[in-house]
Amino acid sequence: MNAVAIIGFGLIGASLARALKARGLAGELRAVDPDPAQLKAGRALGFLDRPCASVAEAVTGAELVVVAVPVAASREVFAQIRAAGPLEAVLTDVGSTKGSVIEDARAAFGALPANFVPGHPIAGTERSGAAHADAALFAGRRVILTPHAGTDPAVLAAVEAMWRGVGAEVVRMDADRHDRVLAATSHLPHMLAYALVDHLAAEDAREEMFRFAAGGFRDFTRIASSSPRMWRDIAMANRQALLDALDGFSARLAALRDAVAAGDGDAVMDCFERARAARERFLELIEGARQQ
Amino acid sequence: MNAVAIIGFGLIGASLARALKARGLAGELRAVDPDPAQLKAGRALGFLDRPCASVAEAVTGAELVVVAVPVAASREVFAQIRAAGPLEAVLTDVGSTKGSVIEDARAAFGALPANFVPGHPIAGTERSGAAHADAALFAGRRVILTPHAGTDPAVLAAVEAMWRGVGAEVVRMDADRHDRVLAATSHLPHMLAYALVDHLAAEDAREEMFRFAAGGFRDFTRIASSSPRMWRDIAMANRQALLDALDGFSARLAALRDAVAAGDGDAVMDCFERARAARERFLELIEGARQQ
Repeated sequence: MNAVAIIGFGLIGASLARALKARGLAGELRAVDPDPAQLKAGRALGFLDRPCASVAEAVTGAELVVVAVPVAASREVFAQIRAAGPLEAVLTDVGSTKGSVIEDARAAFGALPANFVPGHPIAGTERSGAAHADAALFAGRRVILTPHAGTDPAVLAAVEAMWRGVGAEVVRMDADRHDRVLAATSHLPHMLAYALVDHLAAEDAREEMFRFAAGGFRDFTRIASSSPRMWRDIAMANRQALLDALDGFSARLAALRDAVAAGDGDAVMDCFERARAARERFLELIEGARQQ
Repeated sequence: MNAVAIIGFGLIGASLARALKARGLAGELRAVDPDPAQLKAGRALGFLDRPCASVAEAVTGAELVVVAVPVAASREVFAQIRAAGPLEAVLTDVGSTKGSVIEDARAAFGALPANFVPGHPIAGTERSGAAHADAALFAGRRVILTPHAGTDPAVLAAVEAMWRGVGAEVVRMDADRHDRVLAATSHLPHMLAYALVDHLAAEDAREEMFRFAAGGFRDFTRIASSSPRMWRDIAMANRQALLDALDGFSARLAALRDAVAAGDGDAVMDCFERARAARERFLELIEGARQQ
């Protein structure tokens, strides 16, 4: 790719920029972000060639445009891209929800552009910002692309090549399915972690609570240190799938509660045994992905 | 201490044994466990002097007896200690619930012995067994002791000295308060992790679910790899405090759900912001403990 424009220079956008530059996969790396500090960090760390003052400046003449903004900002960014002129670049995004982003693109462009490939790299940390950009963030990670019926196969191939180029494994999935799977495995756990910490923080004994919490609690609640704004946006953007996941989980938790209340140790043990076995299977799948 | 008897040679009991031997704090280290493989591991790794065939053999003539069995086995072990003769040793335990263990001791001994100090080291991993014994497991960790009104101060001091000797920070707490604090910060998160993985495992798309789960999910569910039997016992032994914690959490989660359903981004954001701020505070407290 010659000129690559990254719209939104947070952790994901800046890590992609850094990975592309590190592997020589981008000629001129351009970026735009409402926060000047993000662009400054990219300049200082040497992986941003051209900080841009506007979306129009960034996308004009770019071969590849990657939208890496909080999902709530997608529609406005797509509108700015549209306003900059006819879309000739390959366009993709990294949003954690796909149905909402596709609706945003449809609304901004009038119809889904043939050169738009919605995408979602399953990667990240609880850290935010370009200063934490990591060129290895996508290595061995999965990236889900959710092409629509009218996506140009050559454009899809170009986006796949970009992600493979930074070390990721690319898979395709229906956008609805993506949203349901991510609601269950990512969005729901974030809600649980935030709700748990918020619950404990409301206790009179919160200082004591936190003081005597063990390492398991630290791991369990790590995702509650994630960006509140980003996760509010995700919760709003993937609302229905998230509500379904929350309700399914809550029913399961209520059944476990009832077993505890009834002193039904066998039912409690069954639940724990099933969960441990399932997690072992999960670890095998993760390990398999790493080794591919 | 001259002879130290560890009753129950799982991860905690064996790690304590290893730490005591490594620091020269135990003359003859004895242990008993229904699983011969645990004692064999302790022998092979060199920190068990005398595998015992019975509780009576282990405790007879011991200066210090540490009960490190799953909490559901506490009563039977106390009864065996009682049956072995008058309790002359310092007696303590490492159970994750304290109210139930105190009741067990009262039932077995008729009244709470003056040389019994209930205790709980806030340490562990999802691994089990003497083969994973770690002499550094308690270094920098907190140990909660819940002495009763009749506890002999000299006995309390001896137990405190033992834990400080293996690097732990010792604090005293009322047993009821211990059980409430641990229900909220440890037992509740385990229930949530087990219920979440069990819920996902019941989905038709479970393979896909697990395949696309990210690192956050791995951390969040690590505690769902813990021993089902141990956690069933804890759930049963600390039932009322756990139910209170579950109900408090569920109400908080329901409020978050309602905010998501109503599209109330501000309320969702408030919850996430409070949680993130509280977790920062938690990390400071943990850091403070480590530096002491």
